[in-house]
Amino acid sequence: MTPTTKPFDRLLLTGAAGTLGRVLRPRLLGHCERLRLSDRAELGTAAPGEELQPAALEDRAAVLALLEGVDAVVHLGGVSTEAAFDPILQANIVGLFNLYEAARHHGVRRIVFASSNHVVGYYRQNEVIDSHAPPRPDTLYGVSKAFGENLSRMYWDRYGIQTVCLRIGSATSAPLNRRMLASWLSHDDLERLVVAALTAPCAGHTVIFGTSDNATRWWDNRRAMHIGYRPQDSAEPWRAAIEAADPRPDPQDPALTWQGGVFVKLGPYET
Amino acid sequence: MTPTTKPFDRLLLTGAAGTLGRVLRPRLLGHCERLRLSDRAELGTAAPGEELQPAALEDRAAVLALLEGVDAVVHLGGVSTEAAFDPILQANIVGLFNLYEAARHHGVRRIVFASSNHVVGYYRQNEVIDSHAPPRPDTLYGVSKAFGENLSRMYWDRYGIQTVCLRIGSATSAPLNRRMLASWLSHDDLERLVVAALTAPCAGHTVIFGTSDNATRWWDNRRAMHIGYRPQDSAEPWRAAIEAADPRPDPQDPALTWQGGVFVKLGPYET
Amino acid sequence: MTPTTKPFDRLLLTGAAGTLGRVLRPRLLGHCERLRLSDRAELGTAAPGEELQPAALEDRAAVLALLEGVDAVVHLGGVSTEAAFDPILQANIVGLFNLYEAARHHGVRRIVFASSNHVVGYYRQNEVIDSHAPPRPDTLYGVSKAFGENLSRMYWDRYGIQTVCLRIGSATSAPLNRRMLASWLSHDDLERLVVAALTAPCAGHTVIFGTSDNATRWWDNRRAMHIGYRPQDSAEPWRAAIEAADPRPDPQDPALTWQGGVFVKLGPYET
Amino acid sequence: MTPTTKPFDRLLLTGAAGTLGRVLRPRLLGHCERLRLSDRAELGTAAPGEELQPAALEDRAAVLALLEGVDAVVHLGGVSTEAAFDPILQANIVGLFNLYEAARHHGVRRIVFASSNHVVGYYRQNEVIDSHAPPRPDTLYGVSKAFGENLSRMYWDRYGIQTVCLRIGSATSAPLNRRMLASWLSHDDLERLVVAALTAPCAGHTVIFGTSDNATRWWDNRRAMHIGYRPQDSAEPWRAAIEAADPRPDPQDPALTWQGGVFVKLGPYET
Amino acid sequence: MTPTTKPFDRLLLTGAAGTLGRVLRPRLLGHCERLRLSDRAELGTAAPGEELQPAALEDRAAVLALLEGVDAVVHLGGVSTEAAFDPILQANIVGLFNLYEAARHHGVRRIVFASSNHVVGYYRQNEVIDSHAPPRPDTLYGVSKAFGENLSRMYWDRYGIQTVCLRIGSATSAPLNRRMLASWLSHDDLERLVVAALTAPCAGHTVIFGTSDNATRWWDNRRAMHIGYRPQDSAEPWRAAIEAADPRPDPQDPALTWQGGVFVKLGPYET
Amino acid sequence: MTPTTKPFDRLLLTGAAGTLGRVLRPRLLGHCERLRLSDRAELGTAAPGEELQPAALEDRAAVLALLEGVDAVVHLGGVSTEAAFDPILQANIVGLFNLYEAARHHGVRRIVFASSNHVVGYYRQNEVIDSHAPPRPDTLYGVSKAFGENLSRMYWDRYGIQTVCLRIGSATSAPLNRRMLASWLSHDDLERLVVAALTAPCAGHTVIFGTSDNATRWWDNRRAMHIGYRPQDSAEPWRAAIEAADPRPDPQDPALTWQGGVFVKLGPYET
Repeated sequence: MTPTTKPFDRLLLTGAAGTLGRVLRPRLLGHCERLRLSDRAELGTAAPGEELQPAALEDRAAVLALLEGVDAVVHLGGVSTEAAFDPILQANIVGLFNLYEAARHHGVRRIVFASSNHVVGYYRQNEVIDSHAPPRPDTLYGVSKAFGENLSRMYWDRYGIQTVCLRIGSATSAPLNRRMLASWLSHDDLERLVVAALTAPCAGHTVIFGTSDNATRWWDNRRAMHIGYRPQDSAEPWRAAIEAADPRPDPQDPALTWQGGVFVKLGPYET
Repeated sequence: MTPTTKPFDRLLLTGAAGTLGRVLRPRLLGHCERLRLSDRAELGTAAPGEELQPAALEDRAAVLALLEGVDAVVHLGGVSTEAAFDPILQANIVGLFNLYEAARHHGVRRIVFASSNHVVGYYRQNEVIDSHAPPRPDTLYGVSKAFGENLSRMYWDRYGIQTVCLRIGSATSAPLNRRMLASWLSHDDLERLVVAALTAPCAGHTVIFGTSDNATRWWDNRRAMHIGYRPQDSAEPWRAAIEAADPRPDPQDPALTWQGGVFVKLGPYET
Repeated sequence: MTPTTKPFDRLLLTGAAGTLGRVLRPRLLGHCERLRLSDRAELGTAAPGEELQPAALEDRAAVLALLEGVDAVVHLGGVSTEAAFDPILQANIVGLFNLYEAARHHGVRRIVFASSNHVVGYYRQNEVIDSHAPPRPDTLYGVSKAFGENLSRMYWDRYGIQTVCLRIGSATSAPLNRRMLASWLSHDDLERLVVAALTAPCAGHTVIFGTSDNATRWWDNRRAMHIGYRPQDSAEPWRAAIEAADPRPDPQDPALTWQGGVFVKLGPYET
Repeated sequence: MTPTTKPFDRLLLTGAAGTLGRVLRPRLLGHCERLRLSDRAELGTAAPGEELQPAALEDRAAVLALLEGVDAVVHLGGVSTEAAFDPILQANIVGLFNLYEAARHHGVRRIVFASSNHVVGYYRQNEVIDSHAPPRPDTLYGVSKAFGENLSRMYWDRYGIQTVCLRIGSATSAPLNRRMLASWLSHDDLERLVVAALTAPCAGHTVIFGTSDNATRWWDNRRAMHIGYRPQDSAEPWRAAIEAADPRPDPQDPALTWQGGVFVKLGPYET
Repeated sequence: MTPTTKPFDRLLLTGAAGTLGRVLRPRLLGHCERLRLSDRAELGTAAPGEELQPAALEDRAAVLALLEGVDAVVHLGGVSTEAAFDPILQANIVGLFNLYEAARHHGVRRIVFASSNHVVGYYRQNEVIDSHAPPRPDTLYGVSKAFGENLSRMYWDRYGIQTVCLRIGSATSAPLNRRMLASWLSHDDLERLVVAALTAPCAGHTVIFGTSDNATRWWDNRRAMHIGYRPQDSAEPWRAAIEAADPRPDPQDPALTWQGGVFVKLGPYET
Repeated sequence: MTPTTKPFDRLLLTGAAGTLGRVLRPRLLGHCERLRLSDRAELGTAAPGEELQPAALEDRAAVLALLEGVDAVVHLGGVSTEAAFDPILQANIVGLFNLYEAARHHGVRRIVFASSNHVVGYYRQNEVIDSHAPPRPDTLYGVSKAFGENLSRMYWDRYGIQTVCLRIGSATSAPLNRRMLASWLSHDDLERLVVAALTAPCAGHTVIFGTSDNATRWWDNRRAMHIGYRPQDSAEPWRAAIEAADPRPDPQDPALTWQGGVFVKLGPYET
C-alpha cells in the first residue's frame, strides 16, 4: 500500500447510476485513492480516480470480480422500491448474498449497506422507535432489506465483516410533502452519514436511521451514537410552504398514518 | 368550506380569560379562520375573527353548544391549581367529560388538552422520567389531570378523537426560582408546543411535557418526538441571577425535592 | 387492644351485597375480630362478628362514619360495570374521594381497592402487559377505576395510606367463555389475593392483576411479586368444553380481540 | 360447513414426511375434519381423514393448489438445517413467498410457521433473551428463518393473515447432550405448542420459543403468554446421565458457548 | 487425569468452618474427587476425600498455595455480616483480590462467590428488582460484596475466569420471621444453587439471587435462567405460624421496609 | 454564616496537585469564600482565599481533620491510573472510606467524586450505555472507582450525603487520538460539569458521564439530565487532523475496540 492519508485505497460504490449513487459518486472520491463504480445501468465516463465495472448483482462471478482489491463497499445497488418478487429476489436477496460471499472471499472488512425505513414501515407515525424495535416491513422491498440486515449480522458474527445498515428515510434534494418533514435526509447529510459509517473505527454491526435533524422524528438513533453521525440540515425551512400546500390533511391518509407512507398501499405486483 | 391555507376553519380556545388563555388568544388567530373563545370569566371584546361564547364547563348543554362547528379545541379551561375537591370535580372531571361528549357528538377530531406536570409531581427532582412513567399526582388537581389523560385516551381508542396532552411545567414570562430552571416554559415555546400539537397530522393520543430547552431537565420527551415540538428558549440566561438570589437552598425544601414543587404541601382544602 | 392472633381488629368490606361481596363476606371473618359490612343494598342479617352499616358512597358523612374504628378496608363498593356517567361519577369518583378522606381522617392504614382489568381494556389480546403499561381504559367505568388508582397513589405518597389495587379479571364460579380462559379468577384465588393484599407488611401502592394461574395470560404480575399472591386454580380444566362449544370463533369478534372483551362495545349510555 | 366441534375443517401440514412432520401427522388429525399432507418426499399411504398432495415449495402453481380449501397451515416444509444457499433460497425463501401468496389468494387466516432457534444462534448461552431481541442468525438457514418471520409479519400487517412463528429448539424424542438440557422440546410439548398456536383466538403475529419446561433456559416466552402454551415435560430426568457422560465439558466448545450450538461451525457449503 | 464421572477433581471450599460452610461440606464431596477445605477457624478432622488447609484470606502467600491444583472454588470465606471497616477490608477486599490473583496464577476457571442480598439492601420490600438493578448496598459489608462482584467481572472480561455471584438471602434451616417469607433459602436449595453454579457449562459472569421458591419475592432471576437453578422448597409452610407470632407488624419497622432488613440499622462500628 | 452570594463558604479540593486539580484550582475559587486544597504532593503557595492542607488519603486522622468546616468536596484525590493493588487499595479504597467517614462526622452534605469511564471500560465502542448498565471495569483502578460509586451510594441511602459521581472520559487540553473523538472532555466542560454537580439542589446519588458534546458518543447521560450539565465544546474541530494522522486504524486495536481503550492492556502490576 502506498503512503496515503485517505482512509481507503479502493472504495466500491454499487448502484452508482441510481439517484443516490449519482449524488455520492463525486463526494466519495475524496475519501479514497480509487473509486470503483458499478451498476447494471450505464455509468458514463470514468473521471480521474474512478474505475467503471458494470455488474448485475445476481451474477455471482461478476460480483466476485467486483470486490477484488476493494477495501470497503458502499452498497446502494439493487431494487430500491416496491416491485414484483422476482426482481427483488434476484437483486436484493441473491445479489446481497453474492456481495457478502465476495467480501468474505476477498477479505473486505467494511460494508455500508443501504437498508431502508421500509423495514419498519408498519409502525405508526405517532410511535417513536429505535433500532431494536422488531422489524415491521411494509412491502416485499422492506422484507428484502430486513433480509440484508440479518444476512450482514451473520457475516459480522461469523466472519468479522463490519456492516453499517443505513435505514434511509427520504433522500431528496428537498422535502416534498408532510411525511418528509420527518423522513427527509438531505444530500449533504447523506454524505455525512455514509462517511461516518465508512470511517468509524468500531462499527461491528450497526443499524442507524438516515434522516436530517428534523423537528418531527419517529426514529431514535441513540443506539448508534458511536457512529458519530451528526446531521446538520433540517426540513424545518420547508415546513411553512409544505403545510400551506396541504393545510388540512386527511387523518386517514396512509401516507400520514404509517411510517412507511404510501408504500403500505403499493403492490402486490404480478411476479 | 371556503378555500384557505389556514389549518383550521374554527378553533375553540377554552379558559381564554385565564393566564395562559390570554397569552394564546392573539397567537392562535393566525392558525384559523375564526377563533371561538370561552371561559366562565369575562372575555372582553371580540377582535376580528374572534367569537366569544362564555360557558361553565360543568354545564353540559352549554359545552355541547360550545363545540358546534368547531374543528379543534385548545382546552385550557378548568381549575388550574390545587383547590377543594368540589370545584375540581365540577370543572376538571364533569367538565372534561362534557367536553369529550360534545366532541364526539359534533365530530371534532382534535383536542389539545392542558394537562400538568402535577400528574407526576411525586417523582423526585433527581429522577428523569418519560411519559410512560406511571402517574404519581401530587394533588387532587394532579389527579384530575390524570383523569383527563385517561378519559381522552378512551375517546381516542373508541371514537378516534385525537388528543395531545400537554404536561405543562411553569409557563411564566420568565423563570422565577430554582425549580423553574427545570420546569420553565416560555410563552413563545408554549405557542410552539400548542401549534405543533394542533397540526401534527398523526397524533393519536400523545402525552408530552411542556418545557423550554432548559439545561436542567427531569422530563424526557423522546416518546413524543413525532409531534415536532422544538423549544427555542431556555431558562439558562436567568440562572446566574436566580442562583445568586438563593445561593444556598435548603436541601430539605420540598420545592427542590419533588418535581411538583410546593404543590406537595398545598391542601387539603375544605370541600 | 386485646391479645389476638388475627391480623386485624375491625375490617370493613364495602359492596358487601354485591356478587363478589357475598363471596368474600364469610371468608374475611377469619382474618379479623369484627367485620363491618356496608352496601347501599340490603345486607341481610348480621352473623356473629359482623356489623352492618349501610351507606351510599357519595354520602360523605356516612362514609366518614363508616371508617371510624376500622383497621383496613376491602373496597368492592361502587358501580361495577359500564353505565351512564352520573352514577359512575357519584359512586366511583365522589365515593372514592369520600373513602380516602375518611381513611385519612381516621388514620386507616391499608385499603384493598377493587380496580379492574377494564383500566387496560384497549390493549389487544395478543399483547402481554405489566402494571406499568399506561392505562387504556375501555369504558367510563374503566376510566373511573384508573381514577381510583391515581387517587390512591396520591394518598400513599402524601399521607402514607397503603393501597393494593386489584385489577380483577373475571371472578366467576367457573370460566364461561374463551376470553375467560385468560381472565378467569376463581373465588378461592380471589380470597387468596385479597388476603395477601391485606396482610403483606410492605405494600406501599401496588397494582396487581387478579387472575388464576391460567395457561393463557395477558397480564404479567412480576412487579407485584412482593405481595405474595400465588394462585392455585386454573381455567384449564374448562378449556376443552369451552373450545368445543365455540370451536371456530370469529377473529373479528371484539370479545376475542381486546383485553376488555365486550366492554369495548358497551355504551355510551344516556346520562 | 357441516356441524362440527373440531376447530378446523381442513388443515394443511407441510414437510409431513420430515422428522417432525411424522411426529405431528397422527396428532393433528384430532383437530380437523381433514388433514392435507404435503412434502416433496414420499408420504406413504393416506389414513382416513388424510389427503396427500405432494409439492415442491418453489413450485408456485403447486403451492397455490396446495392451499386451496385450507383453513390453516402448519408449515414445517423447507430445508431444516444448514445447507448451500441455493436450496435454502428455493425452499425457505421462494417457497415461503409462494406459501403466503397462496394463503392470501385463498383467504387462509392462520399459519403456524416452523421458525428456528437458529434465528438467534449467535447469542451466548449465558444470555437470556426474549422474542424482541434483534435477530443474530448463526447460519444461512437461520437467516432464511428470519426472512420467514419478517415476511409473515408483513402479511399480518397488510393482509391480516395470522402467523405464529415457532422458534423450535431441539425437538427430539429425548435430550441427547448438555445443550439440549436447555433447548429440548419433547414431542408431546411440540404438539401442545402447535395446537395452542393453531387455536389461540387472537394470535396476530407472534414469535414464541419452542422448548419444554427445562430448568436451564435461555429463552423467555413472556411476550407470548397469550398463546397459552404450557409445556409439561422437562429435560431434567435426563440431566444426571447426560452430565455423567460428559462430566467436564470444554468451556471453549462452541456447542456450549452459543445458543445455536454446533450450527455456528457448519458451512459455508458450496453453492 | 484419571477416568471419572465427577465434574471436578479438586474443589476448594473456603469459609468451611462457618455456618453455611458446615452445611455444604458434606454435600460437595459427591461432586469432586477431593474437597479442599479452608477457614481461619478450626476445621476439625478430615473425612475421606477431604483436605484441610487453613488460611487467612488476607495472607497472599497462603491463598496462593490454597488454590494450587484446584479446579473450582466455592468461596464462602470472609466476614459475613456488618462489622468494622478494617476486618471487612482485610477479608472481603484484600482477601478477594488474593483469591482471584491466585486463581489467575493457577489457571482456575470457575469460582462460585457468596455475594449477598445486602448488595441491594436499600431497595424497598415493595420493589421487585433483577440483577441489573444498580447496587444499593445497606452496609460496609454490602459494599464489600459489591466489590467482589465487580472484581470478579473484571477477571472474567480480562482473564476468562468464570464466576457465579450468589446473592444469598437468608440461608437458615427454617424461616424465622416475616422478612424470611421472602428471603429464605433452604439448605437443600442452597446446595442446588451451588451445584448448578459450579456445573453450568457456560456461566461467564452471572449474578443470581439465592432464595427458595417463596410466594413472596423481591428478586427476579430471569437474567440467570441459564444457570439452571430450580428451587424446590418454599417458606409457605411456615407462613401461618410466623404470621400468627407477629400478626400486626409495625409498618415503620425497617426489617419490613427495606430488602436488607435490620442490616440498615447495624453499625457504624468503630474501626 | 456571613452574608454571601457564593454557593459555598468552604470548598475542599483533593488531588489539587494533580493534572485536573491544577485545572480546577483557579476555577473553583469563584464558587466559594475559601478553597481548601489538599494533596500528598507539593501544592505550592496559597493564593488569596486558598488554604493548603496536605494529607495522605489513607491517613484517617488527617482526612478527618481535612473535612472539618467544609461545606462540600470535589474529590479528585487518589490513584488515577492502573497501578499495583496496594497503592490503589490505600488511596482509592481506604482513602475513600476515610473521606466519607469524615464527611459523616462533620456533616458535609455534598461530594463530587471523580469516578472514571474505566468503571465500564469493558463495554465495546459500538455499544451505547447509560449509567444503569452494570459495571464492567477494565482494571483494578476501574474496580476501585466502582467501589467508590457503591460506597457513596450507601452514604446517601443511610446518611443523606449527596454524591455526584463523574465518570470522566479523557480530560485533556485537546483530543489526542481517535478514541478521544468520543471520550474527550474539555477543561471548560470539566469546570461546567463540576460546578453543575456541586450546585444542583437535588442530586441525591447521581452517576454522570463526563464528556464534551462530541459527535461520537458511547455514553448516554439521559438519567442525569437533572444535574443541568450542558457541554459546550466538541472534539469535532480536531477530527480531520486526528483522522489524517491515523487514517487506517487497525480494527483489532484494543484502543479502538473497548470503551476503556488501552487500559484493557495495562497491568497486571506487581504488588
